[in-house]
Amino acid sequence: MSVFEPISLRPIGVVRSPWKEKFAIPRQSGLARGVESIVELDREWIPAEALRGLEGVSHVWLVCWFHESLADGWRPTVRPPRLGGSVRLGVFATRSPHRPNPISLSLVRLLAVDDRRLRISEADLLDGTPVLDIKPHLPWAEQPEHARCEWAGAAPDRLEVHFAAQAEAEIATHPEAAVLRRVIVESLCWDPRPSSQRDDPTRTFAVALLDVDVRFRVDAAGVEVLTIEPRRRDNLAP
Amino acid sequence: MSVFEPISLRPIGVVRSPWKEKFAIPRQSGLARGVESIVELDREWIPAEALRGLEGVSHVWLVCWFHESLADGWRPTVRPPRLGGSVRLGVFATRSPHRPNPISLSLVRLLAVDDRRLRISEADLLDGTPVLDIKPHLPWAEQPEHARCEWAGAAPDRLEVHFAAQAEAEIATHPEAAVLRRVIVESLCWDPRPSSQRDDPTRTFAVALLDVDVRFRVDAAGVEVLTIEPRRRDNLAP
Repeated sequence: MSVFEPISLRPIGVVRSPWKEKFAIPRQSGLARGVESIVELDREWIPAEALRGLEGVSHVWLVCWFHESLADGWRPTVRPPRLGGSVRLGVFATRSPHRPNPISLSLVRLLAVDDRRLRISEADLLDGTPVLDIKPHLPWAEQPEHARCEWAGAAPDRLEVHFAAQAEAEIATHPEAAVLRRVIVESLCWDPRPSSQRDDPTRTFAVALLDVDVRFRVDAAGVEVLTIEPRRRDNLAP
Repeated sequence: MSVFEPISLRPIGVVRSPWKEKFAIPRQSGLARGVESIVELDREWIPAEALRGLEGVSHVWLVCWFHESLADGWRPTVRPPRLGGSVRLGVFATRSPHRPNPISLSLVRLLAVDDRRLRISEADLLDGTPVLDIKPHLPWAEQPEHARCEWAGAAPDRLEVHFAAQAEAEIATHPEAAVLRRVIVESLCWDPRPSSQRDDPTRTFAVALLDVDVRFRVDAAGVEVLTIEPRRRDNLAP
């Protein structure tokens, strides 16, 4: 394999998304319906005409770089959360971000193109993710009949998301209450809890979404959003 | 955009395919039905267990490096062959290999996994292409309803492929005649001719497939394979 030249890449842009940390990002594209993100292209490198014709494309592939997974390295096998965290699969049989080359692949809905700025929805990408490429999705080539992935045969179960009275009051004061509500529901309904922390229904979790910190817990009735507060943790993207 | 660290990649393996030059490679994955390729993983880096569970996956994404398109660089707009070569589209609205980061994306059928060797079909990759990543295709996330790409709304038209008497005689002497016939038919039926060279039905073209050189022409009746000869050109992969 030493015949290859080293490969080096330069990002074409960056993702701006409501997800300010990896926790609670839906574990696949296509799940977070109606949650918008932005792709900002590098204006010094990419001219606007490089996007000409994209308005006739409904879904695009975003090929990105899992920049926040890089430091952890990779292992040959991983334990997918949807298998309860006990079954090991080879990394190439999964979509784990911890890969030899941590390249991500997300199919997103393209809502609008405005100069070097793409409005998208249904992404699954951390705020600040470097974008490497954008490609049109071609349904006639990329939607084979009878395709199957045995260990992940269907979308994950969707939980009900309820807001406690305090959280309802807090969300009402947010300048973009409807957007925030949708981000919270579409992020938490897929049960973001690690497999190892699902046994105690009183346990609370905190996650940074948009400009707030959200506390929630999960029991048999679904997800209960407890509090919504202005961001306090300063180790996250603004 | 200067916040990003430079990104460097190391291929995890290489594609072995019947396509020994770019000319006549089908212009998308999923088209060359029944044409097999091999992914050979780097045995010094990738352990066999990294593929555990892949046998339960019918289709995988191959993320590769368009190594033979690199030297030509990229332009903001390209002229897709299917639009007759006269319409310019932004490179990100197309699947052209000449991209800012020349990363390819191919959805292929996984036939078998044998240690660090994957048998696949329906690829569209040049022999010797470096492989960067392998991911399972997840139909429930990656087959959205009502997806559309207006400028490429359906598979390209398929031409009939006929073999002249001389080509029939030559193919019969090949040790893998049936494989060779399928590679020829599934490569030429999509009309590989450049848009600018379609006006003269007597013009002949040559292409390297497997271990032979194939000469053909295209007229209103379809593709006529004229001759099939052992490889003579030494500027190609063996």
